[in-house]
Amino acid sequence: MDEVMADPIEKFINLYNQEFALDLKLEALHGKEIFEAVPQEHSHKVWEYINAEGFFRDLTVIPGSQDVIKALTEKYQVFIVSAGMEFRNSLIDKFDWLQDHFPFISWKNYVLCGDKSIIGADIMIDDRPKNLRTFSGERKLLFTSPHNVNLVEFERVSTWQEVAEKLL
Amino acid sequence: MDEVMADPIEKFINLYNQEFALDLKLEALHGKEIFEAVPQEHSHKVWEYINAEGFFRDLTVIPGSQDVIKALTEKYQVFIVSAGMEFRNSLIDKFDWLQDHFPFISWKNYVLCGDKSIIGADIMIDDRPKNLRTFSGERKLLFTSPHNVNLVEFERVSTWQEVAEKLL
Repeated sequence: MDEVMADPIEKFINLYNQEFALDLKLEALHGKEIFEAVPQEHSHKVWEYINAEGFFRDLTVIPGSQDVIKALTEKYQVFIVSAGMEFRNSLIDKFDWLQDHFPFISWKNYVLCGDKSIIGADIMIDDRPKNLRTFSGERKLLFTSPHNVNLVEFERVSTWQEVAEKLL
Repeated sequence: MDEVMADPIEKFINLYNQEFALDLKLEALHGKEIFEAVPQEHSHKVWEYINAEGFFRDLTVIPGSQDVIKALTEKYQVFIVSAGMEFRNSLIDKFDWLQDHFPFISWKNYVLCGDKSIIGADIMIDDRPKNLRTFSGERKLLFTSPHNVNLVEFERVSTWQEVAEKLL
């Protein structure tokens, strides 16, 4: 979900700039995790914001994800797998967000987990190399996100249009 | 989780008997789903109770599950997979219940899903034949629960002691 279907980075930057009257820009995250892009004394803010109730409830939808995933459901059995278990308060927010923005996917196909190595599927689209590395399926697509731009290990997709070109 | 590690049936019976001043007994559920064991005009109560916030928060732990699952974690990689996605309000209750009663299992190994066919594992212990039927792993253990007592399709375990004898 995060950084593939939903945009938590934009929300983090907005909250952070508002609290500290700063002007952190998306470009500063190139090749980095969020907590590496802020001064060390602010790195705990990442966890504070993300753990708060409601953080995941109103994230912006990543452009193209709705249309392309809808088309994918006509060709594939699509499951939405999120490693949201790290953040207890994210669970219901993620459920409600999916109901709002992806109403064409049943709750039967939602999976909230901690470690995605338990998932048995054929294709995985993910922004995290750790999830792709432990995936046993035949095809792994790395969805571009600031933290993974320097990685060359996987087949890369930078937009949902590229996903459509590869899978539809 | 439900009817294997946690006991929602006992709680349902208590709530139901309290609301209607009745004396529904566990034996009446033999070979039946809960909603089949109550008069038809009360069958919606099953969903009403189960959908309420807090229903899954204080369920009784199934005897033996803590000790045997702890021992299993020393021999296997154990994931707790619950099809709780059907009940939005169960998600955080289930998370908190696991933290309380199974503190030796990391949140990394929790999975809340709708359809367990997405799970890739070697052994599944479950009370629901539908979950075992779609499971691709090598061993399927049906954990006895009132609704499944007449089923002969799977290798059966009726207590956690039996699980220990088979898997430890």
